[in-house]
Amino acid sequence: MSNTENTKPIFPKGDRTSSNYFTGSAWVKNLVPGDDVLKTVIGNVVFEPGARNNWHRHGGGQILIVTDGLGYYQEKGKPAQLLRPGDVVQVPPALVHWHGAGPAQSFTHIAINPNMQDGVVEWLEPVTEKEYMEAVGG
Amino acid sequence: MSNTENTKPIFPKGDRTSSNYFTGSAWVKNLVPGDDVLKTVIGNVVFEPGARNNWHRHGGGQILIVTDGLGYYQEKGKPAQLLRPGDVVQVPPALVHWHGAGPAQSFTHIAINPNMQDGVVEWLEPVTEKEYMEAVGG
Repeated sequence: MSNTENTKPIFPKGDRTSSNYFTGSAWVKNLVPGDDVLKTVIGNVVFEPGARNNWHRHGGGQILIVTDGLGYYQEKGKPAQLLRPGDVVQVPPALVHWHGAGPAQSFTHIAINPNMQDGVVEWLEPVTEKEYMEAVGG
Repeated sequence: MSNTENTKPIFPKGDRTSSNYFTGSAWVKNLVPGDDVLKTVIGNVVFEPGARNNWHRHGGGQILIVTDGLGYYQEKGKPAQLLRPGDVVQVPPALVHWHGAGPAQSFTHIAINPNMQDGVVEWLEPVTEKEYMEAVGG
């Protein structure tokens, strides 16, 4: 077992994500559905190796907290960043980006969407195989 | 090793918390310091057995995500709730409450404070030994 993997997941795997917005297999466990009091949506996302979400943006921004595995985060027009357990990513509102697993290992993060009064997510086009392989150095 | 404890913490332990606001030993690792873009403060808190924070409230509310150990959350005037890894607590704005470890096991949670434009935290009086022992059924 790799030293980036915990022996026991914190959350159940949840529901398969929509293939309209993801490439490969990923699961989301809803943790906080979001209401007009806390104005925050939180989910735990598990990506199988090679899986990633589409390019997308958040009206209220997003914070990712990596809890397991190895993955990547890429902002449009910039090099991808490698992510390990304990890493935290702050995504400003409206910034186009994607996140997902590396090619050979699964990846788990908590995704926090605050300020939902400003919008939660707008999905864009898939991350192509060419874009993905360039991002992960493959 | 108990089945509520992971073998490897996700975050480093961080800094010792102030004895003005905590009883017993606890550590906080700041994950998101908070700014006027995401308006969210996030920290990881580790409580030693018996440690807890004072009664307090959050102007913008709070979300707790339990990642390790066994602990308690209590709202003023209600019975305490036992918390295990994977549990999530949504604390509405202005509600007086405390959280901390059980008497015999450490406890770790991620604490998310959204809507910081409405206030982050207001500390109140310590949870007395009598209140704590009643809460944990001791």
